[in-house]
Amino acid sequence: MCELKVGDIGEKELLKRLQRFCPLEIVGDDGAVMAIQPGQLLVVTTDVLVNEVHFSDRTTTPEDAGWRAAAANLSDLAAMGALPLGITVGLGLKSDVSVSWTERLYQGMTSCLQQYDTSIVGGDVCRSQVITLAITAFGQVHPSRVIRRSTAHVGDAIVVTGVHGASRAGLELLLHPEVGQNLSNAERAALILAHQRPQPRLDVLPLLWEVLGIKESLSRPSAPYYRVAGMDSSDGLADALVQICQASGVGAKIEQSQIPVPAALKNWVPSSPALEWALYGGEDFELVLCLPPDLATVLVQKLGNDAAIVGTITPNLEVQLSDKTGKNPDQVLTLSRGFQHF
Amino acid sequence: MCELKVGDIGEKELLKRLQRFCPLEIVGDDGAVMAIQPGQLLVVTTDVLVNEVHFSDRTTTPEDAGWRAAAANLSDLAAMGALPLGITVGLGLKSDVSVSWTERLYQGMTSCLQQYDTSIVGGDVCRSQVITLAITAFGQVHPSRVIRRSTAHVGDAIVVTGVHGASRAGLELLLHPEVGQNLSNAERAALILAHQRPQPRLDVLPLLWEVLGIKESLSRPSAPYYRVAGMDSSDGLADALVQICQASGVGAKIEQSQIPVPAALKNWVPSSPALEWALYGGEDFELVLCLPPDLATVLVQKLGNDAAIVGTITPNLEVQLSDKTGKNPDQVLTLSRGFQHF
Repeated sequence: MCELKVGDIGEKELLKRLQRFCPLEIVGDDGAVMAIQPGQLLVVTTDVLVNEVHFSDRTTTPEDAGWRAAAANLSDLAAMGALPLGITVGLGLKSDVSVSWTERLYQGMTSCLQQYDTSIVGGDVCRSQVITLAITAFGQVHPSRVIRRSTAHVGDAIVVTGVHGASRAGLELLLHPEVGQNLSNAERAALILAHQRPQPRLDVLPLLWEVLGIKESLSRPSAPYYRVAGMDSSDGLADALVQICQASGVGAKIEQSQIPVPAALKNWVPSSPALEWALYGGEDFELVLCLPPDLATVLVQKLGNDAAIVGTITPNLEVQLSDKTGKNPDQVLTLSRGFQHF
Repeated sequence: MCELKVGDIGEKELLKRLQRFCPLEIVGDDGAVMAIQPGQLLVVTTDVLVNEVHFSDRTTTPEDAGWRAAAANLSDLAAMGALPLGITVGLGLKSDVSVSWTERLYQGMTSCLQQYDTSIVGGDVCRSQVITLAITAFGQVHPSRVIRRSTAHVGDAIVVTGVHGASRAGLELLLHPEVGQNLSNAERAALILAHQRPQPRLDVLPLLWEVLGIKESLSRPSAPYYRVAGMDSSDGLADALVQICQASGVGAKIEQSQIPVPAALKNWVPSSPALEWALYGGEDFELVLCLPPDLATVLVQKLGNDAAIVGTITPNLEVQLSDKTGKNPDQVLTLSRGFQHF
């Protein structure tokens, strides 16, 4: 087998090939030019992903690595209440990486972005000893719709937009195919898909705006900014809960039995650490939103499926996890359990 | 000596320290939120820099590496006619990189950005086997002021905004202190500074707008977009000339004696490859602009110093370099001579 390597074709030819994944009218200059709708704010977010840390050929095809990287950044935009305008891609490659690997990575990013009518608008490639992928995503949001971590109020209900632990379970199945033997094929496939092709929850935003009556307020310039706090659960549900509480100067009481986990985890043999994965697994890319209880109830109804109210914002500065069934002892969630680099 | 390493403090503590270099009101959420002036377009550009490829402790302090990285991205904005809004920084680090190295890198970026009232608005850090720095810069530009590569017309004069070859000469002095012995200390220092602390030419834009009468046209919605083609010379003057001609479907005739090179290169012993460095050295971060000859003359007068008209856009699809003194043979510039990764 004699596959074409990036070292064989050089930087300019590689860039030319990768530009095929970008809108023609936008590439070819020192920068990409894009219009923002009048009255909208710019939202920017960035992520760096490194081979063998964030993705691995063992568990992830290049298409999946690309999809996941794009999804992670779109999820950050969703967490801010913003709709995407585009992403830029900075790529560090060893000379012996195959051209087709690189093109498949771009194909994966593009597939994810196309769902939201957005695209790769710029990039850079360079030589590196380790494959590195740096993505910056930008979006736009009306000033009244910005979601921040710091605005949770005591008494708010805490909504999660879907199940947690699915991505971590999918990774387990990829790394250790011998586990979860009594799962159905469909269950296995669904968990693996949750890991390989997570969906950013941009679809939540129109429902949220509807629930918060934002359509009206947009037409009234003096309308109060709507009150919702939140972020995404990319670093795990526990991390999101603690971050929101710290930023807002509040605490939370979470009921363990209310945390939605994939039904398949209940059939997992030997018994799965479902709660552990839900709290600390990460990469489920759901949104964690704090808003008044009556609105939260309506939002959860509109979201359907696995959305749920998992707890309440409290004045004491702790995130307490209780189990009303009494099976597990109460615990206090902290940041230190989540994944940290270095 | 027992310096604190990033592996000692972990990701969250490192991010906390690096956030001190960012505006307080902008960090702390999944993304940064910024306002764009009404009627302006968003411009985005991105660069990936890798240790030992783009910078090296032998020739570059961490402050300088940071400055150069920020300058390169601001230069891309200037090349599009855009003023900066901010940058994001994605940083891949080995665990044994010292915390102070990282902070000094950020200090260098911030020093460069502060000159233009802009700042680091977001970022990400992760573990990597090789230090990698991915910067995305965004700026804003009025639709009538966008500079593109593809709009050069036959008969345009080609303006360079300053000397070329200085950065490459500075690098030579850093790598081989024994060369250029008969340069004055001031000349050595100036060349080294050109390499370590290049200045993006954002200062050119207001002069360009003035020359092109853009103030008037901004008040007339139907005013024709002004006609200037251009890009920066970050990959060398030859690269810029060829890229502009290819994008515009034209050629150029360049007069070698008109290319401004640092006066110090004339005192260089043994004789410096000044033309080679000017054409292919790169990283001078000047602008190369094509516009009608009468306007070009006014622009060069306003720019003063080392700005010059170096040639003319021609219909035949070649970039020809002539020497009216007859000392050097004519040559045709191509893309293949410039620096390529892989």
